[in-house]
Amino acid sequence: MIVVKVGGSHGIDYEAVCSDLASIVKSGQQVILVHGGSAETNRISEKLGKPPRMVTSASGYESRYTDRETLEIFEMVYCGKMNKSIVEKLQRNGVNAVGLSGLDGRIWEGSRKAAITILEGGRKRVLRDDFTGKVERVNLELVHLLLNGGFTPVLTPPAISYEHEAINVDGDRAAAMLASALKVDKLVILSNVPGLLREIQDEQSLVPEIPFAEIEEFTAFAKGRMKKKILGAVEAIRDGVKEVVLGDARKPFPITEALSGRGTVIH
Amino acid sequence: MIVVKVGGSHGIDYEAVCSDLASIVKSGQQVILVHGGSAETNRISEKLGKPPRMVTSASGYESRYTDRETLEIFEMVYCGKMNKSIVEKLQRNGVNAVGLSGLDGRIWEGSRKAAITILEGGRKRVLRDDFTGKVERVNLELVHLLLNGGFTPVLTPPAISYEHEAINVDGDRAAAMLASALKVDKLVILSNVPGLLREIQDEQSLVPEIPFAEIEEFTAFAKGRMKKKILGAVEAIRDGVKEVVLGDARKPFPITEALSGRGTVIH
Repeated sequence: MIVVKVGGSHGIDYEAVCSDLASIVKSGQQVILVHGGSAETNRISEKLGKPPRMVTSASGYESRYTDRETLEIFEMVYCGKMNKSIVEKLQRNGVNAVGLSGLDGRIWEGSRKAAITILEGGRKRVLRDDFTGKVERVNLELVHLLLNGGFTPVLTPPAISYEHEAINVDGDRAAAMLASALKVDKLVILSNVPGLLREIQDEQSLVPEIPFAEIEEFTAFAKGRMKKKILGAVEAIRDGVKEVVLGDARKPFPITEALSGRGTVIH
Repeated sequence: MIVVKVGGSHGIDYEAVCSDLASIVKSGQQVILVHGGSAETNRISEKLGKPPRMVTSASGYESRYTDRETLEIFEMVYCGKMNKSIVEKLQRNGVNAVGLSGLDGRIWEGSRKAAITILEGGRKRVLRDDFTGKVERVNLELVHLLLNGGFTPVLTPPAISYEHEAINVDGDRAAAMLASALKVDKLVILSNVPGLLREIQDEQSLVPEIPFAEIEEFTAFAKGRMKKKILGAVEAIRDGVKEVVLGDARKPFPITEALSGRGTVIH
């Protein structure tokens, strides 16, 4: 069994991801696909007159400020447009996919962080009414039920808070939580870059391998969204996943390539 | 086991539907909820600069002209915003709900009608590139799996065509297909009217009961969206459902009220 996370940034080839995933499923391997939708959420938010607002937390991580209106747009794009378009592609490739959010069957449960401290122009500010949070518990019952029934789960944020509210959570870290809860050997995190780059502008500067003991010295290279992917990888390996591969979803056979070691392998 | 369909028109009290459904589920009854999202789809379509276009078929039924762009907006609202908001409400009421479309597990399968003949200004015209269709087959495997696992399915269009495309289908008729495939005794169809009215403007003119043998003489009262509800009811009863109740979703306890005979009972 493997967990594959595919991002939501520009340039990702979902057709390639879905046809590659289909051949892996047909070979008898169980796969759970986790996906994002950030670029499309930005586009739809703009069109709806509610431009996205990205904030940087005091600890340096970037996230989407998510009031209730933003959360509903987020759900429209992640759970509606993106999720159903991926399910449709998988069905076309002969995979009996089932699209879900973390609300469904409470798969991803965690705490809402209603007040977040952000850095704005070098100063700290507290934002309230934010529906973001962190997955702390994975309820596997529904996932096992589907896998045992021959279905392929396609999972996307939001998660659900202990107070039963939908919360925006980071997809990479949620996928890492899922991977370690399922005790899979491999977690593949695909995005629109070849993996961790020493120089963000230079795709030739790929870090091909990171032994877990040396992760600290490599995390400094991670910029922007890559920071959370590395954080997710660290959490997954700490919690028992043997190998995490950061791979490129702009190329053909992105999952197969990552599984064969192309990208940044963390073990 | 019962199937409840709740519409997507203005005035529907989803909180009331969800809390009522929760108490029925807690009493030990299995429920499958099917929902729509038409009013919200119209609102979002307008905001996205793609106003809805309703067309009337040559046989007199109204439907949404659904090109691919409209289909994606439809999925955003039905599968994203509406579905996840209902799942969230049910979770808050202690029901372990799982939100799905007809694509997931191919629950609703049917044929796409790429060319539809419409009436426009009294003249017939053929529209092409339309992603609408009709549910012809219900694949119950996933529904049974969820019910047996203690989950409550929350189902919404689109369905999936035999060529693996998402297709817009009528929710009332799709719910009727589901109800007869599941061989349930009762199908409850809730909307923003008290049931079938003799005079559409007069809520006092409710038809309380229609023996199936006399359905023909009552269908003439059905206007607009009520026509498809009656059509769905006829199809459900013809295929083995014992009773269909058209009830009011603007009131407290809408499902319980309908089950106790308030609304239009067709049997």
